[in-house]
Amino acid sequence: MVPHLTTALTGPLLELEQRILDGACAIERWLRLWWQQHEPPFYSSVDLRNSGFKLAPVDTNLFPGGFNNLNPAFVPLAVQAVRSLLERLCPNAKNLLLVPESHTRNRWYLENVAVLATILRQAGLEVRLGSLSPDVAAPTALETATGKRVVVEPLRRSGARLGLDGFDPCIVLLNNDLSAGVPDILRGLEGQVLVPPLHAGWASRLKSQHFAAYDDVAAEFARLLDIDPWLVNPYHAQCGEIDFQTRAGEECLAANVAMLLEKIRAKYREYRIGETPFVAVKADAGTYGMGVMMVRDPAEVRDLNRRQRNRMAVVKEGLVVSNVILQEGVATMERIEDKVAEPVVYMVGPHVIGGFYRVHGARGAEDNLNAPGMHFVPLAFEQSCTVPDPHAACDAPPNRFYAYGVVARLAAAGAALELERTAPRAAARVSPPCA
Amino acid sequence: MVPHLTTALTGPLLELEQRILDGACAIERWLRLWWQQHEPPFYSSVDLRNSGFKLAPVDTNLFPGGFNNLNPAFVPLAVQAVRSLLERLCPNAKNLLLVPESHTRNRWYLENVAVLATILRQAGLEVRLGSLSPDVAAPTALETATGKRVVVEPLRRSGARLGLDGFDPCIVLLNNDLSAGVPDILRGLEGQVLVPPLHAGWASRLKSQHFAAYDDVAAEFARLLDIDPWLVNPYHAQCGEIDFQTRAGEECLAANVAMLLEKIRAKYREYRIGETPFVAVKADAGTYGMGVMMVRDPAEVRDLNRRQRNRMAVVKEGLVVSNVILQEGVATMERIEDKVAEPVVYMVGPHVIGGFYRVHGARGAEDNLNAPGMHFVPLAFEQSCTVPDPHAACDAPPNRFYAYGVVARLAAAGAALELERTAPRAAARVSPPCA
Repeated sequence: MVPHLTTALTGPLLELEQRILDGACAIERWLRLWWQQHEPPFYSSVDLRNSGFKLAPVDTNLFPGGFNNLNPAFVPLAVQAVRSLLERLCPNAKNLLLVPESHTRNRWYLENVAVLATILRQAGLEVRLGSLSPDVAAPTALETATGKRVVVEPLRRSGARLGLDGFDPCIVLLNNDLSAGVPDILRGLEGQVLVPPLHAGWASRLKSQHFAAYDDVAAEFARLLDIDPWLVNPYHAQCGEIDFQTRAGEECLAANVAMLLEKIRAKYREYRIGETPFVAVKADAGTYGMGVMMVRDPAEVRDLNRRQRNRMAVVKEGLVVSNVILQEGVATMERIEDKVAEPVVYMVGPHVIGGFYRVHGARGAEDNLNAPGMHFVPLAFEQSCTVPDPHAACDAPPNRFYAYGVVARLAAAGAALELERTAPRAAARVSPPCA
Repeated sequence: MVPHLTTALTGPLLELEQRILDGACAIERWLRLWWQQHEPPFYSSVDLRNSGFKLAPVDTNLFPGGFNNLNPAFVPLAVQAVRSLLERLCPNAKNLLLVPESHTRNRWYLENVAVLATILRQAGLEVRLGSLSPDVAAPTALETATGKRVVVEPLRRSGARLGLDGFDPCIVLLNNDLSAGVPDILRGLEGQVLVPPLHAGWASRLKSQHFAAYDDVAAEFARLLDIDPWLVNPYHAQCGEIDFQTRAGEECLAANVAMLLEKIRAKYREYRIGETPFVAVKADAGTYGMGVMMVRDPAEVRDLNRRQRNRMAVVKEGLVVSNVILQEGVATMERIEDKVAEPVVYMVGPHVIGGFYRVHGARGAEDNLNAPGMHFVPLAFEQSCTVPDPHAACDAPPNRFYAYGVVARLAAAGAALELERTAPRAAARVSPPCA
């Protein structure tokens, strides 16, 4: 079953899809050369929005959960991608230590961990799980949502190496986004590959730095295809020194919202788009769709009530929001059985390995679909996003999915550039040899 | 639908499969390190025989046809494998020239060419087809068995570069096994990647050199898993200076057949196998299952009638058989609906991308199933051969297929070693940079 797409199939997006299809050879070559120059993220997932007139990433996750939402038919793609990445990252690799999130009571998250660990094992690695949680003092068996068994063990530091009792890994893979800060036990590892690097964690990562890097990628891509970069890139701006509780920084917010709305309006006029522009206000650091607000008027950020202020003020792990990113709102025009849907594309290294739709019954086209308390139904893509069909129409599912795969890989390219630019000066760009 | 396998599920093969499953991490690591040291064939297909007590390659094809026989569901695996290989071979690649076989009247072969060209295009290459046939003097449209259209064009040599009118490729990919010899137009190319290399063609390649290299690979693999290498490696021997028409070299043949039968008998005693040993006599150069004979007694090679001598004397393109390889016969114990079946596994670079069964109604378990005039029905594997299931029994389809994928990759590793050893001294081992 291919998800029924009722995307508005007229206007610029169809033209963009046709450009992407016609440019597939140039795009693949450009990406190939890009990954010769830049280190791909070990894994990533990208939330895309297809508004019918533009197709853009709105969030790039470097610690993806949700591997359990992927179509099991594409596991071989994920396994092959891990094997290719190991050739590049650490051919000698034997043991991999996976460090999951510490909230071990979320059984769907544990399901994700179980699926991810299985993929890594099938790629030929010995995989064990080490927990950052102080509550894990001995090997602990946990049950996933579907009844799988996952064992987490206490981490052991030995000199400059991290491991478990009787387990010395070549690779330490974080599936913990470090929202709670970088624990000392992860600092200063030597002779082991630590991916993603510590500065990719939400303790220091800023969405605004990601989208600044993505601006450069989108501009290069637009030159390659001779298109307007706006078609794949939402406008954005940022405000630092915000305090939602004391209302400090409100003027910066309001001014930037006004400026962005004006820029979007100009584009809408240029492309004769009849929609009302809106802006997403998000915590610059942090994840899980917490601290997100959609505004259509600068006045809205001045008139926040206490509940709204509280909701914006902190994100996961109690991280206080002091920096805010303002992003052009891109509505999703995709519907599955009349419900609003948003595609999420998964990658391992430079390769797309599948994806799924977040399908929300209770939400609108302009809402954030990755919000706490809002239940979404994942619908695995039936197609791999990697293979265009040159004989089919450009909006045929394989081709639409190919376009999704291309834009998602642009976001991953942006993430690679972002991580280079934000790397601590002392850190070598290339990972040290593993042993 | 998973093919119904009625393989004899007792005795050493089950043990071998269990060893392969238990050793998956060590095997994957070993293969990863192997491909750091050796250049993988661009593509290959391996005929396997599963006799119920051993699992071994019997033929390694470096110019595989039959891409049309693969399960279309695994095309994304093939596309990803091509993309990974391009990163390694020629990141800058844009245009690829595919040189097919010249017998353009075989419409199923053309179907293979069409499928292969589509995979290469989907990986992001501009692909055009150039023919070695003198009959192709202008671009010629040909129709495949399913009605696809394939255009072959005359080759153009310009200095040290090969191309077509208006098409200068980075990569020249041969799907022509050069049974008719190496044409001058392919010699001395510079600044282009030519794969497979010319010395992989049947004008000079010898099966005995492949299996000599495979001996070394099988021995290393057997040490890794602590198993008898015989379980994955058929005994073999060779005779040169054979002339089937004048009956020269018959004594060498008979003596080697007797020696091989004795070695096999000893192994059968060791493993308490009740079968009757047999030996395959094959042309050392050449393909398509021509020039193959199964013998159970040395006397059989002395008493060839005229028809048998004629059948052995020449293979494809009239190539005269003067070297012969004698190979331990491995019967296939696999049946699909009571018909004899032989698995064929396909690889792109180091990655398995799928496979199919040759299913023969009219042939026996010990016969050659890739024979001219014998119709076989291809049955695409339902599984990818790349992903073991550690929770299932070792003879469950994913695990059996994983074992097939491992042994096929060992054969590809043998081919890489063979091509290194047989490379002309002047040829650099590493391909020149493409431009």
